[in-house]
Amino acid sequence: MNRSNEGTPRRSIVSGADFLHLAIEEAPSGGKSEWLAQQIRLALADRRLPMGSRLPATRVLAGELGVSRGVVTEAYQRLAEDGYLDGRGRNGTIVVGAPAATAAAKPPPTLVGPPSPRSVFTAAPEADVFDLIRTARARIDFSPGLPDVAAFPRAAWLREERRVLDRLAASDLGYGDPRGTLALRVAVANWIARNRGIRADPGEVLVVAGTAQTLTLVGQVLRDDGISAVAIEDPGSLGARQHLRNCRLDTPPVAVDSEGVRVDELRATGAAAIFLTPAHQFPTGVVLRGSRRSELTHWASESGGLIIEDDYDAEHRYDRTPVPALRSVLANNVFYAGSVSKLLAPALRIGWVLAPPKYRDALLDAKRFADLGNAALPQLVLARFMESGALERQLRHLRRHHRRRRDTMVKAIAAHLPGATVHGAAAGLHLTITFEAGFADTDVAAAALARDVKVHPLSWHCQRPRQPGLVLGYAASPPTDISEGVATLGDVLRRMSASGT
Amino acid sequence: MNRSNEGTPRRSIVSGADFLHLAIEEAPSGGKSEWLAQQIRLALADRRLPMGSRLPATRVLAGELGVSRGVVTEAYQRLAEDGYLDGRGRNGTIVVGAPAATAAAKPPPTLVGPPSPRSVFTAAPEADVFDLIRTARARIDFSPGLPDVAAFPRAAWLREERRVLDRLAASDLGYGDPRGTLALRVAVANWIARNRGIRADPGEVLVVAGTAQTLTLVGQVLRDDGISAVAIEDPGSLGARQHLRNCRLDTPPVAVDSEGVRVDELRATGAAAIFLTPAHQFPTGVVLRGSRRSELTHWASESGGLIIEDDYDAEHRYDRTPVPALRSVLANNVFYAGSVSKLLAPALRIGWVLAPPKYRDALLDAKRFADLGNAALPQLVLARFMESGALERQLRHLRRHHRRRRDTMVKAIAAHLPGATVHGAAAGLHLTITFEAGFADTDVAAAALARDVKVHPLSWHCQRPRQPGLVLGYAASPPTDISEGVATLGDVLRRMSASGT
Repeated sequence: MNRSNEGTPRRSIVSGADFLHLAIEEAPSGGKSEWLAQQIRLALADRRLPMGSRLPATRVLAGELGVSRGVVTEAYQRLAEDGYLDGRGRNGTIVVGAPAATAAAKPPPTLVGPPSPRSVFTAAPEADVFDLIRTARARIDFSPGLPDVAAFPRAAWLREERRVLDRLAASDLGYGDPRGTLALRVAVANWIARNRGIRADPGEVLVVAGTAQTLTLVGQVLRDDGISAVAIEDPGSLGARQHLRNCRLDTPPVAVDSEGVRVDELRATGAAAIFLTPAHQFPTGVVLRGSRRSELTHWASESGGLIIEDDYDAEHRYDRTPVPALRSVLANNVFYAGSVSKLLAPALRIGWVLAPPKYRDALLDAKRFADLGNAALPQLVLARFMESGALERQLRHLRRHHRRRRDTMVKAIAAHLPGATVHGAAAGLHLTITFEAGFADTDVAAAALARDVKVHPLSWHCQRPRQPGLVLGYAASPPTDISEGVATLGDVLRRMSASGT
Repeated sequence: MNRSNEGTPRRSIVSGADFLHLAIEEAPSGGKSEWLAQQIRLALADRRLPMGSRLPATRVLAGELGVSRGVVTEAYQRLAEDGYLDGRGRNGTIVVGAPAATAAAKPPPTLVGPPSPRSVFTAAPEADVFDLIRTARARIDFSPGLPDVAAFPRAAWLREERRVLDRLAASDLGYGDPRGTLALRVAVANWIARNRGIRADPGEVLVVAGTAQTLTLVGQVLRDDGISAVAIEDPGSLGARQHLRNCRLDTPPVAVDSEGVRVDELRATGAAAIFLTPAHQFPTGVVLRGSRRSELTHWASESGGLIIEDDYDAEHRYDRTPVPALRSVLANNVFYAGSVSKLLAPALRIGWVLAPPKYRDALLDAKRFADLGNAALPQLVLARFMESGALERQLRHLRRHHRRRRDTMVKAIAAHLPGATVHGAAAGLHLTITFEAGFADTDVAAAALARDVKVHPLSWHCQRPRQPGLVLGYAASPPTDISEGVATLGDVLRRMSASGT
């Protein structure tokens, strides 16, 4: 093995000669590119190829291995798409990232890329906080909000895309209806009728680029209508709060207790609108039902109060009956926001919003100015997914997966964090734990990240001081990672308690 | 033939019995769905199936034809995707649109869907004007801004998408970098270096949902920086003006003459920024070169003036040398906006923007709040298109096509509109004609639309009164349509001149 670069953090030029001592005869005949990419990946993971090193030119390496240049180009391309290589013109192909290292070949701490675990959690979270935590490296990722994306139905998606491309009219490739394609609006109307108890005409459905866009568009429309504050659950989504604040809206906090949002507190704020997650409150997991739900309905009908209903993970439920959306009974007061981020993948950036009739035109104008409407092809593919039953099959599949992972996490918490209280595990993609401690949950999150486990501190999602806790997504992690990660959290908490920091 | 519905504009129920007298034995064995869809399409075009009529249930029709239900469902689905049918739950499948009718079976004028030709052009254009003109029906569409979307490389797109899906890491399906995927940012940096003379690091590239989104994001950022006006070329893009105004920016007009934008007028406005289309001015087609270009560069360097450079169709040139982007010499002053709308298809909604360094972070924040970043899959497919040379091949192919269409239109104008002056035909996807007339160009556009030819009146794109004219896109129309459409325009103008209206 050529180990001359091992442990060398500075930029160094890897010679084309004997590069990684590759034994091309081990490569399967139809899969040379994939084999080569895997060899380089291993070399990246164990730092034989450190950050900043330059790879041999494709022509050179191909000649050396006796393969076509395309084999090498494809391998490099694949690694570039994974974010490991950067192929800038005259500098050649440079290492810019690395897969998570295995324990045996763990890099020296100085090599762990930015941001440092501590830096993510020291300051108050700003606009880029979710980018920071996403790019922070950790082998086990309990960030909430992700379904099991590894289960994304790639083959079925491609199959439906082929059908869409086969049948598309050329005019569908031009500028389209900013509300979205008719096919998807029909499919969404049917989907929310079947799954969320909402009766809506396709003409009421506005297709958007996910709920983040919904929040910004609705925020603009409310601001333009003279509304200056949108109350927000406390605890409640930090991301939603940031989006609304960015629209120059105040976000007075309204407490959430075991029955859901405190409508008396909402009245006391005097806010004309509130952002809610009624089906599975984020992050506490409380369901808004019964008397609290009627109270809220009264508030809305009496005062003309507006509700932004973020129905982000309502389809994922395990041990409880479904809860119909508020929109199903309050069509004149509710902006209803849904998306496929938790059903298929956030990377699709497709969602939908139904506005109260009086705001429909303004919201359409806002969407038009935002981007002229979503891209057409993914909408048409998704429409086929929804109308063919494929999305319901995917959901059933995910539910089984997620439930197993949820069970694993609940068990692991009982074993490793006996003092913690679990909240909201009956549905969704995450649960929340709270615990007694003399230190901040941001410090716990930082210590966990330093030990390769990524979590959200509960305090990020709180506007008022509260018991420390962690928000733990389980849907995207395999059961072994869940057990191991929770064990690490238990160890982190024990050490911090012992040292009294 | 069952003609009981012919000419019946009211909603009527089509019985399942003998529906359209379909002769299933004529269908090819592997293509029954396509055959059925085509039969229904013909019936829609000649109004055997008028707007509002209900189609037989899929089960019923399948039984009648002796085919599997999937054959019928697929045919209906395809027509729904084309916007002709609407399959709402309990109402069954309803006719909501129709293909352009042939001359022989032209529907009575009352059946032509909204909006009416006159209504599109009577009032001053508002936010929805491009939706109105897009949904107005016309057999020949000279709306500017579309490449030949029928030439979209569907098979190649699907092939690259398969590769992307094969190789994607699961984490790429989660929430991503709001700047865009690294692969596409690298590809764009290479593309603009090769094609537009701009040297940029991939870290400077922000992937957006087309230039419409660029305008709104840049407008927000400038407004937040205390800038209250962005000057705009006159004539200049109505759409761009609407977007900037929507950001509460004034848009003082600056004249364009045969050398390009009048920099002396720009100085006189006192505006801190200007929106420009230097490579092929929209809509006049003038190229900003030589002394006018240096004047503009002086203005920018002296005053710190900002330029939004919309490089919307610079890659399409026929009879002239390429013009490097302003960004290539004014990186600190120019927001550079590009997109694939004119290279592949507007429906992809992918573009990019390079900001001056001082605005880069603010623009990234704006994009993050807008939608958390573009969808990942189409970005990765496009990156492969750009890096493999497929996009350059597509561009060469389009150039040949477009040049032929441009030539056809120029010839047809010489033949049918001898009094008109042609502007800006050396590049791009459209040309502009001006003419002497005692009537408004909006009336010409309305009369043309009533005769099945869709055009933009030049006055839409002017802030100050000016000679009447029309903006004519040629890239998306086959040559026969171009000749016929221009002949119709000639006839319309002659009649209007003769009647003195």
